[in-house]
Amino acid sequence: MADSRPGTRDRLAIIAGGGQLPRYVAEAAKARGESPYILALTNESADDWSGFDHEVISIGNYAGIGAAFRRHGIGRAVLTGWVRRRPEWRDIHAPFKALLAVPSVVRTLLRGGDDTVLKMVIRLIESEGVRVVGAHEIVPGLLGTEGPLGRLAPDAAAEADIAAAAAAALALGRLDVGQGAVAVGGRVVALEGAEGTDGMLERVAELRAAGRISQRRKGVLVKLCKPGQDLRADLPAIGPETLRLAKAAGLAGIAVEAGRSLVLERAALVCEADAGGLFVTGILPERTEGGR
Amino acid sequence: MADSRPGTRDRLAIIAGGGQLPRYVAEAAKARGESPYILALTNESADDWSGFDHEVISIGNYAGIGAAFRRHGIGRAVLTGWVRRRPEWRDIHAPFKALLAVPSVVRTLLRGGDDTVLKMVIRLIESEGVRVVGAHEIVPGLLGTEGPLGRLAPDAAAEADIAAAAAAALALGRLDVGQGAVAVGGRVVALEGAEGTDGMLERVAELRAAGRISQRRKGVLVKLCKPGQDLRADLPAIGPETLRLAKAAGLAGIAVEAGRSLVLERAALVCEADAGGLFVTGILPERTEGGR
Repeated sequence: MADSRPGTRDRLAIIAGGGQLPRYVAEAAKARGESPYILALTNESADDWSGFDHEVISIGNYAGIGAAFRRHGIGRAVLTGWVRRRPEWRDIHAPFKALLAVPSVVRTLLRGGDDTVLKMVIRLIESEGVRVVGAHEIVPGLLGTEGPLGRLAPDAAAEADIAAAAAAALALGRLDVGQGAVAVGGRVVALEGAEGTDGMLERVAELRAAGRISQRRKGVLVKLCKPGQDLRADLPAIGPETLRLAKAAGLAGIAVEAGRSLVLERAALVCEADAGGLFVTGILPERTEGGR
Repeated sequence: MADSRPGTRDRLAIIAGGGQLPRYVAEAAKARGESPYILALTNESADDWSGFDHEVISIGNYAGIGAAFRRHGIGRAVLTGWVRRRPEWRDIHAPFKALLAVPSVVRTLLRGGDDTVLKMVIRLIESEGVRVVGAHEIVPGLLGTEGPLGRLAPDAAAEADIAAAAAAALALGRLDVGQGAVAVGGRVVALEGAEGTDGMLERVAELRAAGRISQRRKGVLVKLCKPGQDLRADLPAIGPETLRLAKAAGLAGIAVEAGRSLVLERAALVCEADAGGLFVTGILPERTEGGR
């Protein structure tokens, strides 16, 4: 199946789901001299990819993805952005459909958590002779580091919120559900589901405006990697928009997992955080109370 | 402190937080010949209590609550409805304030989960010589029972959703966060935080309308008691309004913990469930996959 001429298959493919990350990775890859080929996922990628070689394809069309890999000499692939929708049966093409005769595959694909599904997608891509790499391997400096990124650091109240939200995020991560939680006054007030981090922060802002969350205690957004998560897929990411929404929600700051999260547009993020009076910090949850 | 004349203090107090439950319990208690005295919590109880002997009081005004108990011959108290807001420091009156010299009490009161705070409130009330009873002790038949309440029972897909949502609800419950979760297609898509069950169901309806949740798979709402939760406070509750919101969110049904949840207006709930094609069932989560 795989092209047998080594060296001819080194082009980078970006399999683009939803959110801002795919565009960011594509631009950064281009700036580093790559010529990425974009496979924009149907119903997920809302970006206009006209500046890039690209095609729109369903995640269930595994045969089409394999053909695109061979046609464009793809040797490496990055999975970026979210995939909200599981493929419906009618969208799944052969030979993927043959695989689905195996009940455990069906269960995994249609019912598994994000992480389970992504691990299977990675295995399938690699069986095509394409190496799956992490976005942080294409864009150095993208991984979050430990400690405060900007001028401000969490105070004692924020540390308590970080511990509470991290404990909830880890408990959910073990079940392969969600990556984010918000705690205010040491209490978890919001947990991330299919609405995503932005949707959760908008909800916190509404609850705050409605007086359902203390006006006097700020609170913290925590985003963690799931335990056992493959670092090549779906790392938790924050960027300037996350910061703006966190500020609108009245939070004191954001904590993300050091070494296992992506920080987009770091300079802009830090500038806005400092100007807005919020902290952004990298944590190692094993070291906090939340790491139990 | 407690009135020393036994028998003179037998009146029922209803400490009324938010939501529909306090009014429901008050009406039911009245129908059973009780003459409940309502302590409606500031900022929480939105009900018009003019048909009942009542006063509005802050949850932080423990001295005032104790005085009301003595003044009205209260011997039993029911805690009903939610308390969204923790008392702010300025709202906390002596002698409660003296207690707050103890750091662990401050932490518990201001930062603890709902269950921790409620247990402390129960201890404080009982130290006044008032017995705290569960709403189900005042209104028999209020506790959810095992198995389907109406005509319909969960099918295999719904059972898988129940297991997934129950696992998430239990993991959160262990952290004293939330009681509810929604799973669709075996995946948890929403987790309950400060927005409450109704808010979570409205979000699921929005995510479904926006195509962020499968249109083809229905899904289930699960509400469980937290492990170790005091049954006299804050039991998960469902009623006809929960059913309407679950239907609007496109769910197949609702599962609540048998023996540890409140089912309000059961006849109306069952009638609407049967008419709407939804199941309502009582589960014992230890017995499901979610009970790990």
